[in-house]
Amino acid sequence: MKEDRENWYGEQQTNNVKLLFKMKKKLYDDRSKYQHLEIYESFEFGKIMFLDGTVQLTERDEFIYHEMITHVPLNYHRAPKKILVIGGGDGGTVRELLKHKVESITLVEIDKIVVDSSKKYFSSLAKSLDDPKVEVIIDDGIKYVENTNSKYDIVIIDSTDPVGPAKALFSDAFYKNVKSKLNKNGIIVTQSGSPFYYPEHLKIAVKNMKKSFAYTYTYLADIPTYPSSIWSFTIATDTKLEKVYRRKIDTKYYSYKLHKNLVLPFFVDTIINSI
Amino acid sequence: MKEDRENWYGEQQTNNVKLLFKMKKKLYDDRSKYQHLEIYESFEFGKIMFLDGTVQLTERDEFIYHEMITHVPLNYHRAPKKILVIGGGDGGTVRELLKHKVESITLVEIDKIVVDSSKKYFSSLAKSLDDPKVEVIIDDGIKYVENTNSKYDIVIIDSTDPVGPAKALFSDAFYKNVKSKLNKNGIIVTQSGSPFYYPEHLKIAVKNMKKSFAYTYTYLADIPTYPSSIWSFTIATDTKLEKVYRRKIDTKYYSYKLHKNLVLPFFVDTIINSI
Repeated sequence: MKEDRENWYGEQQTNNVKLLFKMKKKLYDDRSKYQHLEIYESFEFGKIMFLDGTVQLTERDEFIYHEMITHVPLNYHRAPKKILVIGGGDGGTVRELLKHKVESITLVEIDKIVVDSSKKYFSSLAKSLDDPKVEVIIDDGIKYVENTNSKYDIVIIDSTDPVGPAKALFSDAFYKNVKSKLNKNGIIVTQSGSPFYYPEHLKIAVKNMKKSFAYTYTYLADIPTYPSSIWSFTIATDTKLEKVYRRKIDTKYYSYKLHKNLVLPFFVDTIINSI
Repeated sequence: MKEDRENWYGEQQTNNVKLLFKMKKKLYDDRSKYQHLEIYESFEFGKIMFLDGTVQLTERDEFIYHEMITHVPLNYHRAPKKILVIGGGDGGTVRELLKHKVESITLVEIDKIVVDSSKKYFSSLAKSLDDPKVEVIIDDGIKYVENTNSKYDIVIIDSTDPVGPAKALFSDAFYKNVKSKLNKNGIIVTQSGSPFYYPEHLKIAVKNMKKSFAYTYTYLADIPTYPSSIWSFTIATDTKLEKVYRRKIDTKYYSYKLHKNLVLPFFVDTIINSI
């Protein structure tokens, strides 16, 4: 059908593709120093948060992204206790982390309006940030990693794509700094974008991670509201990941069996092998 | 962004979600007794065919659907020789089938305009229909299966969703008829829709297949231009499928390793276990 209605709003995923949602109303609109944040109430996906016009999360499908960016790295680790999250101010990643026996979670979000608006509009995610194990720091993740004296078992880069403000979070300098703050057997994971529309985003992540780490592992999840829906995550470690720990966690997408069988479609393997 | 341009056209995937493509031009528009067929030239996905306003295939991502509906059932079979395709008039499924050592392919497409327009606009797919191993029959698949004296190793239901004309292709009566036309160790596969938006489509397929077959196997592929992109296929057989045959075929999505590791996300397992 043709575009026709005033209450359709969504994301221009590429110059030539748009995903539009029928909205009930706009709940929030604010601009910080870093980005433009909008929250809508949609008919199909519940509440949706946009940052600079791109879907960050929807109530209906955020479980896929948040489960896959957390449970995969954590269940590759024998005993993940100290976790650092860069970005992730909505609290979805922390909600999933709290399903594990972690000791502490430090979340470094650059933009206070993400945390504040999530507490108001996505409370089922953001209430996780009030857990006593969680410390929320409003700061630049790059600077935080440079300056902290702490060391972590898992570092999760839960950022926007490597265009605009998050670009430095995909740089070799940043990965090198992260590595210096990892405990033995530590793991870093980053979302690495759509290999279908933006193979270069995945390539940048993998290539720069390989400069500091012995191993990288890319895996996918199918996230309906993200561009192309074929979404990649990349793990880097200095330890070969061979064992998946089977832990009792309540999930809707992730499972031990899914984790054990993560395999890339051929064209994504080809992208990685071309690096 | 808001809807704003005349040359955006796409699919209303649910009442509340649209996927729109920026189009260069409309190439074809025709109505048969069965459906409304449109073909556009898009910027991002090459040529796109719509049936009754739903994306049937795009040049850019059709490989995912066509590889996954063919190579999975064929590589579960020791020696697939005689193949029946119901629907699939664009020729994409037959193109993939011809990568195997099959003896004959019978394609039964109800709507001649699908075949004719594909030969004109999707010739890289539809030229497969001219292969000497291939017989194209313009007929109702339901009637064909009732009346044929032939038996098949693999039957592929490459149809639209179980709403409208294709509904009977998801019925227990049809599956029962297909079973009577299968050779020993024969396999039927159907596309079974989006478990994210339409879990009832998947349920109907599995439930009705189970009435005639001992085993069903559901698997997914991530198809960017299909609703929710989380797309299911379901196989039914009377033989437990244990071995995946490793055959040299040229693919972009499917691989032996991917096939060996097909696993459902937890929420899709839950849908199937609820049947």
